[in-house]
Amino acid sequence: MKSVGMNRRSLISTVAMLPTLSRILLPIPVRAQTATTGDLLPSWNEGPTKQAIIEFVRATTTQGGPNYVPQAERIAEFDEDGTLWVEHPLYTQVVFCLDRVGVLANEKPELKDREPFKTVLSGDREAIAKLSMRDIFEIVLATQSGMTVEQFRADVKKWLATAKHPRWNRPYTELVYQPMLEVLSYLRANGYRTFIATGGSSGFVREYSEPVYGIPPEHVAGTSQAFKYGYDKDQRPILTRESKLVLDNLDAGKIENFWLMYAQRPQAAFGNSSSDDQQMLEYVKAGTGTRLSALVVHDDATREYAYGPAQGLPDTKVGTLSQAMYDTAKKQGWTIISMKNDWKHVFAFE
Amino acid sequence: MKSVGMNRRSLISTVAMLPTLSRILLPIPVRAQTATTGDLLPSWNEGPTKQAIIEFVRATTTQGGPNYVPQAERIAEFDEDGTLWVEHPLYTQVVFCLDRVGVLANEKPELKDREPFKTVLSGDREAIAKLSMRDIFEIVLATQSGMTVEQFRADVKKWLATAKHPRWNRPYTELVYQPMLEVLSYLRANGYRTFIATGGSSGFVREYSEPVYGIPPEHVAGTSQAFKYGYDKDQRPILTRESKLVLDNLDAGKIENFWLMYAQRPQAAFGNSSSDDQQMLEYVKAGTGTRLSALVVHDDATREYAYGPAQGLPDTKVGTLSQAMYDTAKKQGWTIISMKNDWKHVFAFE
Repeated sequence: MKSVGMNRRSLISTVAMLPTLSRILLPIPVRAQTATTGDLLPSWNEGPTKQAIIEFVRATTTQGGPNYVPQAERIAEFDEDGTLWVEHPLYTQVVFCLDRVGVLANEKPELKDREPFKTVLSGDREAIAKLSMRDIFEIVLATQSGMTVEQFRADVKKWLATAKHPRWNRPYTELVYQPMLEVLSYLRANGYRTFIATGGSSGFVREYSEPVYGIPPEHVAGTSQAFKYGYDKDQRPILTRESKLVLDNLDAGKIENFWLMYAQRPQAAFGNSSSDDQQMLEYVKAGTGTRLSALVVHDDATREYAYGPAQGLPDTKVGTLSQAMYDTAKKQGWTIISMKNDWKHVFAFE
Repeated sequence: MKSVGMNRRSLISTVAMLPTLSRILLPIPVRAQTATTGDLLPSWNEGPTKQAIIEFVRATTTQGGPNYVPQAERIAEFDEDGTLWVEHPLYTQVVFCLDRVGVLANEKPELKDREPFKTVLSGDREAIAKLSMRDIFEIVLATQSGMTVEQFRADVKKWLATAKHPRWNRPYTELVYQPMLEVLSYLRANGYRTFIATGGSSGFVREYSEPVYGIPPEHVAGTSQAFKYGYDKDQRPILTRESKLVLDNLDAGKIENFWLMYAQRPQAAFGNSSSDDQQMLEYVKAGTGTRLSALVVHDDATREYAYGPAQGLPDTKVGTLSQAMYDTAKKQGWTIISMKNDWKHVFAFE
């Protein structure tokens, strides 16, 4: 979740998609990888971007070299929405939450007359499209609280197994960028530990981060709500999700809370949006030695989407890239990843 | 940090110890380990406690067995103070903070007239001994904030390299329990990921967790304060420690925040105190399959300390074990670790 507004038509198409078709399993995108002796980034076109990634790894892992980084400090941080998987027309997790508002309102009828729930339930798509990011946060907190952690886990897994993206008619977990999966594996093969830092709720992402990205739940740092210890009717201890916001990853929160959780400045970071990736990418690039801050630019309307004022394209709000951030990237020497030019394939299923 | 009061004489002896003698490095306790084919717990006496640990590992790692746990779910959680290292006469981190109050008061003279700082600065040891755990939290937040994360890191490392425990006249980082280091290594050798869950501030513990315990900073879940993103005078991005409490690990907070950070119920947990380990140990033991909840009992006044009402010993407040918690441990089948009877050695230097 990254911006303070939503594109109206995007939201309409997403809402139109609900309820979703059923599908059983949580799929893992697969594309055969070249052996470790070969090219570990086969979905990347040759060129300066691919070379920059390879050169970063070479510089930081060459023992005795001037920019060698001990294995204990090899940390790489990835935004999720728009960096590892598709974020248009709407952040996947927001679709999940909107889908749950109806259920929630049946359990708590008082919500039917309360904003922003009233608007979502009204079906008034123009009004829904005007909800702010704070409204969205309220919906996320309300729809992801009140149940045990086990029940929430089951709910997320069930939703992921049935929901499909309106454009590709595929489960969301198949809409991950194959070139980025290769970067994750390539970094790990070189002793890096890989983390997700997301504006979305970590509870949601942790339910699929390991099978989809190879990233264990403890390496996912997201916006977080509180948990409450208690006992069920049989006096068995339980943990319940609370609606209280504890860690807010918007704006600079993503890098502030990354330190709170892990106390390390990553050696590399990948992001795409002005609203919560800028400080993370700045901070990483400002570290000593060789650092890699990389910006994924959505400029491929044919294979994925093209959006963002930085390219003179419409500002669709969801995952937007401002001209100012793009200028900062150029000035500070971030690596610019063009989906259109740098990626041979976008998805494993292509 | 675990209790709501402090032992007067303990605090006096600690305060008397300051300022500490200088010492250069952060030492790593070492004791040669038997090869992996031999006994991985050589500092443990033979008996039911050692057998319980070995049996737990066997049951959860035997493929095809009824209680096999996939490697992704092999998580073990350890309290630090009193479980991995000495917590008497006072929690090490509190000694560090008390040591900093004088420096802080020079920077912020207004604190000299404000409680609880006024009491600490007064040198009135009876009054200092009456400070509550909330007073201690206030001192921790005040003395661990206002500086960049790099400055704090340097301060902690410097202190650890110079401070010594009053009884052994050794750096605190040498006062780790050798049998517990062996358990950490043994679990990791069997595919477990090991974590610290502490009532203390994670920022402090993370500065030595890797060299001392083999636990990387991202696997330390402690009481946490906020961080603030900003820029220094040269417009370089910095992260500053704030005095705002974000995660409070006292009472049930330790297991609630463990879920917030990692979203997993550990398969094994080790603790010792009534004030913040009980819920963690209960929750772990209540999971499905074979679980290990283990309680370290301080009953060895000769080699370490003996304290706690559960043994009919004085309640020293610091890391206390109540009779009620001891009864719960027995009733729920936790593994009771007697320092006196189960440990062949307590420290590596013995």
